[in-house]
Amino acid sequence: MPTEFEFISALTKRHGLKRIGDDCAVLPQNSETDLVVTADMLVENVDFRLDWSSPRSLGHKALAVSLSDIAAMGAVPEWAMVSIAVPDDLWNSGSLDQFYEGWLALAREYGVELVGGDISSTGGPLIIDSIVGGIVPRGKAILRSGASPGNSIYVTGTLGGAAGGLKLLEASHSSEPSAAEIIQRQLEPRPQLTIAKTLQTLGFATSMIDVSDGLSSDLGHVCSSSGVGALIYADSLPVDPNLTAHFGPDERLEMALNGGEDFELLFTCRETALSLADTVRATHIGEITATLGVIELVHGGKSSVLKPKGYRHF
Amino acid sequence: MPTEFEFISALTKRHGLKRIGDDCAVLPQNSETDLVVTADMLVENVDFRLDWSSPRSLGHKALAVSLSDIAAMGAVPEWAMVSIAVPDDLWNSGSLDQFYEGWLALAREYGVELVGGDISSTGGPLIIDSIVGGIVPRGKAILRSGASPGNSIYVTGTLGGAAGGLKLLEASHSSEPSAAEIIQRQLEPRPQLTIAKTLQTLGFATSMIDVSDGLSSDLGHVCSSSGVGALIYADSLPVDPNLTAHFGPDERLEMALNGGEDFELLFTCRETALSLADTVRATHIGEITATLGVIELVHGGKSSVLKPKGYRHF
Repeated sequence: MPTEFEFISALTKRHGLKRIGDDCAVLPQNSETDLVVTADMLVENVDFRLDWSSPRSLGHKALAVSLSDIAAMGAVPEWAMVSIAVPDDLWNSGSLDQFYEGWLALAREYGVELVGGDISSTGGPLIIDSIVGGIVPRGKAILRSGASPGNSIYVTGTLGGAAGGLKLLEASHSSEPSAAEIIQRQLEPRPQLTIAKTLQTLGFATSMIDVSDGLSSDLGHVCSSSGVGALIYADSLPVDPNLTAHFGPDERLEMALNGGEDFELLFTCRETALSLADTVRATHIGEITATLGVIELVHGGKSSVLKPKGYRHF
Repeated sequence: MPTEFEFISALTKRHGLKRIGDDCAVLPQNSETDLVVTADMLVENVDFRLDWSSPRSLGHKALAVSLSDIAAMGAVPEWAMVSIAVPDDLWNSGSLDQFYEGWLALAREYGVELVGGDISSTGGPLIIDSIVGGIVPRGKAILRSGASPGNSIYVTGTLGGAAGGLKLLEASHSSEPSAAEIIQRQLEPRPQLTIAKTLQTLGFATSMIDVSDGLSSDLGHVCSSSGVGALIYADSLPVDPNLTAHFGPDERLEMALNGGEDFELLFTCRETALSLADTVRATHIGEITATLGVIELVHGGKSSVLKPKGYRHF
């Protein structure tokens, strides 16, 4: 059986689907702007658990994951739809109101309007499909495919926190005071829309993706879309400092490389680290190379090939 | 507990969500056109059964229901996304390819481009969210809210066929030769995009909706959105002639009134039946009245109040 990435790749090739394969599809809107659209499905007991997440947090996260895709294009979100398949017991609990409260609270922060969607009953788990539309100056969306050998690789914020939060939830260690911040990163991620807009305006990012599957996977997507490879310095990775109280150094590095769901932005650019640091808070973590599809990890003076890990449905 | 209609109505009022409540949301696109967007969720064993529908037919239907929403605005579809939560056994069967084949075959008919979506695994039933975007001349979308007392009510095509097809499937009578046409209406509905475009261009439809929930429900939506009532002539209803071989007259009328999923267009206009008949193939079935929210059914010389029936999830 193919993985979902192989399935999508085969489908798009077979049918010549040219707008599939980035965080959002880019469509012409008018002479000044392009429309960007994205859809993300969240499945109970696959992407979230209702005993860990309040309905309000889940509403926040459902929107946040799609806003993060809009950010990854350097775009600004404008409108959204939510489709939701609801088990009877959840409908009868009345907690769907709180789901929408959490969704709308985040939407208001970024001026996003709820314009539609669907509500259905289901005999199975709760499923949410989150659809967001946004705009970007025409022809200026930041794609996965623009990285070139010699470009520097940057990441915003910190990595591994969301994965660490998930581990603590799984181990029922979520009540420890020092756990709050990384559990928050897992349950209520923040889309990096402000820095995305700055990067788009500055115009020097050659490629961008959000860190949703995990750095190794997401950098892998950039490399395959751009036809390049990469070199990552393990010592430069901005590992979430809140992990230190709970995990050893090897586990922290593993989380930063493969954890996923941090919803930070990974981007490449031509400028040197120094010139970037003046305008954008991001960490220089490596370089783009010409070795197609190979990501090399430099760690403790040694170099090894980093395989894309992160979560896969199939 | 509220019905889903009551829940959505309360949510939109509480949060001032102005673009919710029609077949599609209408958003400004450029100086000449508006963007219309819609999302429809289909849940296995609620909206379809895999022992009745081939993956290919299901792909067709998943797109058709959303194209029908685009038609109901008088719009033209342009792009679409599909999000799908797939049980492991279905993924391993390889039949997802056929789902997309059916989807893409219908998409090609109407020049619709697949631009994105999501694929997830699920421990529960197969769930599909179908998202379509389209365009309509600026300010010219045909809304549910434009009907006025004295307007004539029309419906395209025939009614009750899809409901009859469903009954035959439920009764395992699907192999009878005379059943093929109405079973096809249930499993592979046709969106009425061509007549929708004609109606939009002619400009005389005051309101429109697609018959997805059932005539009584959908006319009810038009009446509540427009602040009007309606009078329907039972003898004028274009009951699907293919029902005659399988169902008695009362059952046929019931299917035409409440059956749903015919995906025909129900619209109102100022012109008389005669002038309409020259340009558009549709049947004059009644009149809009001033009695807010009341639909009167005239049948065999008697008049009764028609309650919205059709399918409800909650």
